[in-house]
Amino acid sequence: MILGNKWTPLILRELAGNCRRFGELERALTGISPRTLSQRLDELAEWEIVSREEFDEVPPRVEYALTPKGKDLLPIIQKMADWGGKYPDR
Amino acid sequence: MILGNKWTPLILRELAGNCRRFGELERALTGISPRTLSQRLDELAEWEIVSREEFDEVPPRVEYALTPKGKDLLPIIQKMADWGGKYPDR
Repeated sequence: MILGNKWTPLILRELAGNCRRFGELERALTGISPRTLSQRLDELAEWEIVSREEFDEVPPRVEYALTPKGKDLLPIIQKMADWGGKYPDR
Repeated sequence: MILGNKWTPLILRELAGNCRRFGELERALTGISPRTLSQRLDELAEWEIVSREEFDEVPPRVEYALTPKGKDLLPIIQKMADWGGKYPDR
């Protein structure tokens, strides 16, 4: 399932406001490796939760954004986070 | 993450009404293997979403039930299911 890891909810939250470039996401998500970020974005794109748009520029620009399906998931992620926060780890 | 598989939401839904014995869950979840059911229940117990109670009887009886934390998760699982149903697989 798509939410099965630490970073995915954080990536989605980062994209909640506006689209982001890879480097912007990398800087915003302190501690994520480029490899992990790339894998998570690929997964999210495969699930059509995130869209990936390439602009034909030099240097090439790629922007990631939430799809309508992804935007629809945001309130659920918030509820999951609330639930997790309500029951701290033993 | 705890929802990262096919069976977990179905197990939780099965426990929503009342506690269940292992065999009852096995029969209710058509197609699940005992090994998978056992793994999922162990995971859910580790996360304190499901409790496991052993009764000192012959033959031994073990009952699984939702904890308060698990009950609190049910509406979120329902929302996830609604979300998934709204966007069918390509």
